[in-house]
Amino acid sequence: MPDTTRAAHTIARCRELARITDVAGETTRLFLSEATKGAHALVSSWMMRAGLHVRMDDTGTLHGSRPAAAADAPTLLFFSHLDTVPNAGAFDGPLGVLLPLTVLEELGPASLPFHIEIVAFSEEEGIRFAFPFFSSLAATGQLTEDHLARTDAAGITLQQALQHFGLNPALATETAALPPNTRAAIEVHIEQGPVLEADDKPLAIVSTVIGQSRLRLTFTGEANHAGTTPMPLRRDALVAAAEWIAEVSRFAAGYKQLVATVGKVEVLPGAVNVVPGIVTCTLDVRHPADASRHAAVAQLLTKAEHMAASRGVRASVERLAEQASVPMDPLLTEALAQAAARAGYPADEMFSGAGHDSMILAPHVPTTMLFVRSPGGRSHHPDETVLELDVEAAIATLIDFIQHSAAVTLTHT
Amino acid sequence: MPDTTRAAHTIARCRELARITDVAGETTRLFLSEATKGAHALVSSWMMRAGLHVRMDDTGTLHGSRPAAAADAPTLLFFSHLDTVPNAGAFDGPLGVLLPLTVLEELGPASLPFHIEIVAFSEEEGIRFAFPFFSSLAATGQLTEDHLARTDAAGITLQQALQHFGLNPALATETAALPPNTRAAIEVHIEQGPVLEADDKPLAIVSTVIGQSRLRLTFTGEANHAGTTPMPLRRDALVAAAEWIAEVSRFAAGYKQLVATVGKVEVLPGAVNVVPGIVTCTLDVRHPADASRHAAVAQLLTKAEHMAASRGVRASVERLAEQASVPMDPLLTEALAQAAARAGYPADEMFSGAGHDSMILAPHVPTTMLFVRSPGGRSHHPDETVLELDVEAAIATLIDFIQHSAAVTLTHT
Repeated sequence: MPDTTRAAHTIARCRELARITDVAGETTRLFLSEATKGAHALVSSWMMRAGLHVRMDDTGTLHGSRPAAAADAPTLLFFSHLDTVPNAGAFDGPLGVLLPLTVLEELGPASLPFHIEIVAFSEEEGIRFAFPFFSSLAATGQLTEDHLARTDAAGITLQQALQHFGLNPALATETAALPPNTRAAIEVHIEQGPVLEADDKPLAIVSTVIGQSRLRLTFTGEANHAGTTPMPLRRDALVAAAEWIAEVSRFAAGYKQLVATVGKVEVLPGAVNVVPGIVTCTLDVRHPADASRHAAVAQLLTKAEHMAASRGVRASVERLAEQASVPMDPLLTEALAQAAARAGYPADEMFSGAGHDSMILAPHVPTTMLFVRSPGGRSHHPDETVLELDVEAAIATLIDFIQHSAAVTLTHT
Repeated sequence: MPDTTRAAHTIARCRELARITDVAGETTRLFLSEATKGAHALVSSWMMRAGLHVRMDDTGTLHGSRPAAAADAPTLLFFSHLDTVPNAGAFDGPLGVLLPLTVLEELGPASLPFHIEIVAFSEEEGIRFAFPFFSSLAATGQLTEDHLARTDAAGITLQQALQHFGLNPALATETAALPPNTRAAIEVHIEQGPVLEADDKPLAIVSTVIGQSRLRLTFTGEANHAGTTPMPLRRDALVAAAEWIAEVSRFAAGYKQLVATVGKVEVLPGAVNVVPGIVTCTLDVRHPADASRHAAVAQLLTKAEHMAASRGVRASVERLAEQASVPMDPLLTEALAQAAARAGYPADEMFSGAGHDSMILAPHVPTTMLFVRSPGGRSHHPDETVLELDVEAAIATLIDFIQHSAAVTLTHT
């Protein structure tokens, strides 16, 4: 058994940070809130104690850097986020900030031929202004006036919120920009799914953040009296929808790497004694290959039409959102996998089924992700957790990467 | 083509009555409302013009009677109700009051060896105090203190509402009682279903008001991230429920005379990107034979358990209501069928899938129902209608029954 002192130290910090919250009794830290200030103060103090130069940019992102001797050296970035969903766990985001901090503490003052910077984005989840990835969009030069004009539930614009936090929106794009010579960016993140647990593995390297289609289907039949309408004379919208929902699951189970989910259903009129006339339901389809995802969606929609028609029900569809899949940098992914193997934790490649800031950074700088096992697959929940041995595996992997791969990788990429 | 003048006259009265409403622009007459007063005034005026003795009992039920020469003669009752569901049609209830009134107008003053009474109940739907059949329960001596203590949405007790309407609740049981020598009670009612239309028949005689079981099922799986949880690792409560809902429909279609309906579904947490963890749905099962209904419910529940278990989901059940099936009087049913055939409108027996006051009266007096075709199967809707030819068929049937069957039937039953 390896020593897990530094892993326990990392986990303890995540849990201490989780006590800083906008809502007493849970962990809820929304963008630019009072709790965000408290989180920044705590994380800054840890970064400074580790000898990092700390600054806040004008989007509320915290940067902790350890410069190389040469000012024009390339930069290795570690990044994740400090904001949370409502009633969150302690690790989704903070682990990717505080685990690299432990790594830098372990490295000590030894001179390295590249800068290292830890970036703690402050808005990944997108709860307050109802759009995610604000920080990483700003860091990659994609901040727009439209973003700044968005309002929260209280009618405060993002621009006003930044000013109220003591930031200068006019300088946001400039001060939030990634270091100009960033040659590798790594996000450590909990898996938020059950795959590593099922495979009994501590770590995985993410090769692709998978694409996603969201749709809404409406099944329209005829509402009728549940007592007086014999079965053959019904046009039951729910039966048609139910047959299709069952088929969505069967279809996805037989389609490699596909996940398809009906998560929301509304039945009208929705009375115990009335045959349903209208059913709406959502469909969420994800696959690492965009072409395969599109083909699967097309097949599921054709099935909906045919299955509904066979019951005298009409199926119509509305497309809500499309997100293309985003490949991680292959060389960086491979280098990180080799580091994990050398450190004694051989890690498979896997897909990320959830969206991350990595998806936003990848088209701009070589990016990859290191996934840490999520016990029970639990996330976005107070029970979200990590295992000490898995955190140790991630720490050892990053240390190996910095000591044996980074110099070469940062030159190549 | 028969002359449909008297049918048109009956339909016109139903439509005129439908304009008396508590809610402008629709037909909504709740128990003891202002519109109820208006409806009583209009129907009373028609009854009196037809030579009937009119009285209101202390439950708000209107009685129009045509006495026989002998005070101790038996009574033939026609009955239905004047209250409606919200935004109702013109025929559910009123047809069973106004069609017999046309019949009495047609009969003229000829002496008959039995009393005829038309009873217009004023609370069948049960909207205001959230329980149906108040009038017929009172008429059969089943009124209780519990009923009188019930409150409406405004907190008014049924007792207070009766008093406010000018009635004396202390006398209700006495004044609402059916005539002591009632030997036959016939409710004319629209079918409220599509069976007669599918069979191309104007009329049917009801042999049984079918029994009903209402249940609520809960499928409990595990809520998970829709992107990060591979299909084989899911315990999707909605997929389990959907497979069962589809099976409910298939099973009922293959089970003679059974109808089974899932009318209400709730999915939790109900987000587009979350695998459903909990699904609740209602089940409404009806069959003319109670034993068959119980057997069907048992089989559907066993299927729910097994189908859910095969997906790692737990199914639990809560029983909401049980209503035994109520047979109509076989001799009276047969006599009415013979009258219909003689009148030139041979009518099959069928089951009523909906509940009616007939269900309450049947255990106390010989009762049956005459169903009139519902175009499109529509009911509880402003588009609810009847065809003139079908109404003529019902009028001719009742006239034939009174002229050729009633004297014998009222002696036999």
